Amino acid sequence: MKAIGFKKSLPISDPESFIEFETDKPKPTGKELLVKVEAISVNPVDYKIRQNSLKDKTQNEPKVIGWDAVGIVEEVGNEVVLFKKGNKVFYAGDITKPGSNQEYQIVDERIVGFAPKNLTIEEAAAMPLTALTAYEILFDRMGLSKEEDAGKSVLIIGGAGGVGSIAIQMAKKLLGLTVITTASRPETAEWCQKMGADIVINHANLIQEVHHAGFENIDFIVDFVDLNQYWDALVTLIKPQGKIASISDPVHPVDLRQLKGKSVSFYWELMFTRAMFQTDDMIRQHEILNTISDLLDKDIIKSTLNNTINGLSSENLRKAHQQLESGKTIGKLVLKF
Amino acid sequence: MKAIGFKKSLPISDPESFIEFETDKPKPTGKELLVKVEAISVNPVDYKIRQNSLKDKTQNEPKVIGWDAVGIVEEVGNEVVLFKKGNKVFYAGDITKPGSNQEYQIVDERIVGFAPKNLTIEEAAAMPLTALTAYEILFDRMGLSKEEDAGKSVLIIGGAGGVGSIAIQMAKKLLGLTVITTASRPETAEWCQKMGADIVINHANLIQEVHHAGFENIDFIVDFVDLNQYWDALVTLIKPQGKIASISDPVHPVDLRQLKGKSVSFYWELMFTRAMFQTDDMIRQHEILNTISDLLDKDIIKSTLNNTINGLSSENLRKAHQQLESGKTIGKLVLKF
Repeated sequence: MKAIGFKKSLPISDPESFIEFETDKPKPTGKELLVKVEAISVNPVDYKIRQNSLKDKTQNEPKVIGWDAVGIVEEVGNEVVLFKKGNKVFYAGDITKPGSNQEYQIVDERIVGFAPKNLTIEEAAAMPLTALTAYEILFDRMGLSKEEDAGKSVLIIGGAGGVGSIAIQMAKKLLGLTVITTASRPETAEWCQKMGADIVINHANLIQEVHHAGFENIDFIVDFVDLNQYWDALVTLIKPQGKIASISDPVHPVDLRQLKGKSVSFYWELMFTRAMFQTDDMIRQHEILNTISDLLDKDIIKSTLNNTINGLSSENLRKAHQQLESGKTIGKLVLKF
Repeated sequence: MKAIGFKKSLPISDPESFIEFETDKPKPTGKELLVKVEAISVNPVDYKIRQNSLKDKTQNEPKVIGWDAVGIVEEVGNEVVLFKKGNKVFYAGDITKPGSNQEYQIVDERIVGFAPKNLTIEEAAAMPLTALTAYEILFDRMGLSKEEDAGKSVLIIGGAGGVGSIAIQMAKKLLGLTVITTASRPETAEWCQKMGADIVINHANLIQEVHHAGFENIDFIVDFVDLNQYWDALVTLIKPQGKIASISDPVHPVDLRQLKGKSVSFYWELMFTRAMFQTDDMIRQHEILNTISDLLDKDIIKSTLNNTINGLSSENLRKAHQQLESGKTIGKLVLKF
């Protein structure tokens, strides 16, 4: 089967930054599914891993990454109970295992959901990683609920990116929050409004922008960009007893002590934690993905797909990473095999 | 009326570190109560404020501190709805206002509860600040519940202190958690067992001690001592998706980024946040205090009183602070007027 990978961390302009190769179709065991991948999407984690994981060493066997896929179950391990051959599934996968940038992939059934029925392959492929991330933040980490929190305010830093786009929708549609989001170009601002944001502000002068929008402080803040860049503003803007969550990778430490006076809580979200640590509640991702599938099928939330590239090739994957690395991607970019 | 205060931050060995003076009985307005104080307790926040708040300047009018009191409502403001003259009440108070180290004190009714009926004055005076702190941490911040969390593990750093003593009881009796706590002297270990701790360990070599007690990692960790001292151990010991809370005042920043891989949440608790920011839900402290009063009356939780000094005098307050500053106090120390 065909697979795309890399033997060394190289700049995306280098033709060797992704290479195409042939490898054996893997065999599922235990709770594993073998999935024939039909479409994938790219996420910032992809290029972070590509840029950094093989910086100081070269591998003989290319490393296959990619964490988002839609496909058909081709074969199941002997302990599989949730799926059978022929099921159409979608998933984000496990960062410790080979990814979806190949024709066939092995994935644990507990982190796989049934793909939405009313969406195209590419619309569905756009969703797993970002939707899981946004859902885990809002519900599993921050513990928000429509009953308790409808009408409260959330500030989403970075609304036009992949996870921002779906977080806006979930905050609005599933929780009834008032959604303020940052987006600083006309096209990203327009996209955020399309996703359902109530107020779109510029990320520069964040404090003044929020005040100018009529909010003295904010109940919940979710950072999808960079905790270092916004920390002081978040400390000022968060409401006493408020909640701040982040998925970003700040280069420098932040001073947690600044949140004590207001009794603020801070929530990290890493979508890979459950699979990486094989937590007891790992199957929760199966359940969340099924919920997301249902919400998409009912048109309560919409796919954040914004761009599709056709064909699994090293050249197309380079194109996709190049675009993502620009930091200007709006919504999601999908590669259809 | 008689009051005790200080004009300058001085070492507790200095006779001027607390001075006795006469002042006018204050007049309640709005939602305020005037309370005739009958007993108070001392907390670490008292000596932190005494040591630091008037370090660089001297006040003409002595500053009155103390945040814990039991007393009788003497007079009420014109907007008071929860209490009337003659009610026996208890409260921790508001750090931005004059404290309980005086014969009469003004306090906002929304942060006052009805004192327990079946306890002595001194048993009741031991409780408000620490019980509010422990209750807010476990329920309002970490969001724990018996339904969701019974049987899970909590590590309490500093079990024998005032807040540790009541946190052990609440974690055990109200949540059904397995309680592991640090206490490093025979008398503190014995006290923690009396409070209901399942396992008492030494705070040195925390990781090994926890592993040796049969736990690879811990669902919830609550720090009552010093985040700097234990941070690396907490990062190692916390379960993926676990929760860490603290009330301590670390001198150095801690590196929050270390918690990301496990998607851990961090909760600050400052019992004064609600009153300080006059939050919309300030009345929650009235409700919590009434709940605590009820739990004490029903003997579900017990007073953590361990020592009483008789008489409101500057000498007795110096004695109390001196003992607290030693860091060796077990349970609570009360001053009965």
